[in-house]
Amino acid sequence: MKKGKFITFEGCEGSGKSTQIALIKKYLDDNNIDYIFTREPGGTSISEKIRSVILDVNNKEMCNECEALLYASARAQLISEKILPALSEGKLVFCDRYLDSSMAYQAHARGLGEEFLKNINAYAIKNCYPDYTVFLNISPKEAFKRKGGMDKDDRLEQSGMDFHNRVYEGYLKILEKEGDRFISIEPTGSVEDTHQKIISELKKRGII
Amino acid sequence: MKKGKFITFEGCEGSGKSTQIALIKKYLDDNNIDYIFTREPGGTSISEKIRSVILDVNNKEMCNECEALLYASARAQLISEKILPALSEGKLVFCDRYLDSSMAYQAHARGLGEEFLKNINAYAIKNCYPDYTVFLNISPKEAFKRKGGMDKDDRLEQSGMDFHNRVYEGYLKILEKEGDRFISIEPTGSVEDTHQKIISELKKRGII
Repeated sequence: MKKGKFITFEGCEGSGKSTQIALIKKYLDDNNIDYIFTREPGGTSISEKIRSVILDVNNKEMCNECEALLYASARAQLISEKILPALSEGKLVFCDRYLDSSMAYQAHARGLGEEFLKNINAYAIKNCYPDYTVFLNISPKEAFKRKGGMDKDDRLEQSGMDFHNRVYEGYLKILEKEGDRFISIEPTGSVEDTHQKIISELKKRGII
Repeated sequence: MKKGKFITFEGCEGSGKSTQIALIKKYLDDNNIDYIFTREPGGTSISEKIRSVILDVNNKEMCNECEALLYASARAQLISEKILPALSEGKLVFCDRYLDSSMAYQAHARGLGEEFLKNINAYAIKNCYPDYTVFLNISPKEAFKRKGGMDKDDRLEQSGMDFHNRVYEGYLKILEKEGDRFISIEPTGSVEDTHQKIISELKKRGII
């Protein structure tokens, strides 16, 4: 039984998600708020091993179906070993990326389609949907301009601008359909401005 | 388009499958028969990395859904990178374990059910079903007696006798439903007797 709250973070590469997540963790620690923070793909010993296969730059020949099934397998382990037990204890759980990433990256940008991803993830997520999703709403063009380029050690960040634009479109499609769940933040101001916006929205919804 | 023939090998742990496969390879080589031989999980660089996660004895906490999705991901890569290209070139393809293993091990023995496994594999196998399946039809009790015990370095072989009995039951269920596809051999005689039976059945069907 799910008693705690489950909040996910989403955004394109270079959206500033990692920076904002670090600031949120600091805020939660400074304010003695009890939480667990995890990430996808990864978050458990097994899922981190799967993560290293997914993100390895040498695995360029990976087919889209293999990639999507690997994400789902890492997610299944993370949910069963970490997220569901924590939620059933009433904990506040944050996760860096989740199902929306699969829908934006695999279903939309890789073109595998929503049905494929919904079907394989139905078994992986065990009905564990996020209560809220913080989405850093910035286009890849803007994001990479701010970041100063892509990371050459990451297979996904090398995928080219067209791919990242399709990811962003994928997110916007989900946002359109499931707007109520989303806390959509445009990170156009300073890092601190964006942080304050996120904290304010989390407070408004009684999450922290 | 599939022009070649696709033959899979199935059996419980300790059924003598590896020994028989080595003998078949030798026969094919000695008779200058062109073929490719691969295995599951594995058979490509990416799939072998996934295999090492699946079979790692340290990964005891792996949930059943994660395991099933990992097998499907390794299979998707093997099919797309190796099996389908070879079949479209008209080659004779042998594979040590395939979809039936997932049905026997995950669907039946782990209790995940046929629907789960059929659904996740529908995306992985891209309609690539075996033409024939050589099944070494021996119960785990008999098999381990002949083998002299289980392999301690393999997570699956440590799963206990109940598990292996359910795997065998799972195979028998598929055999009952899809008997036409199966070349079911009882490996009760000598290794050489079993080898001759397999070769004879493969010849009878015009496979070699």
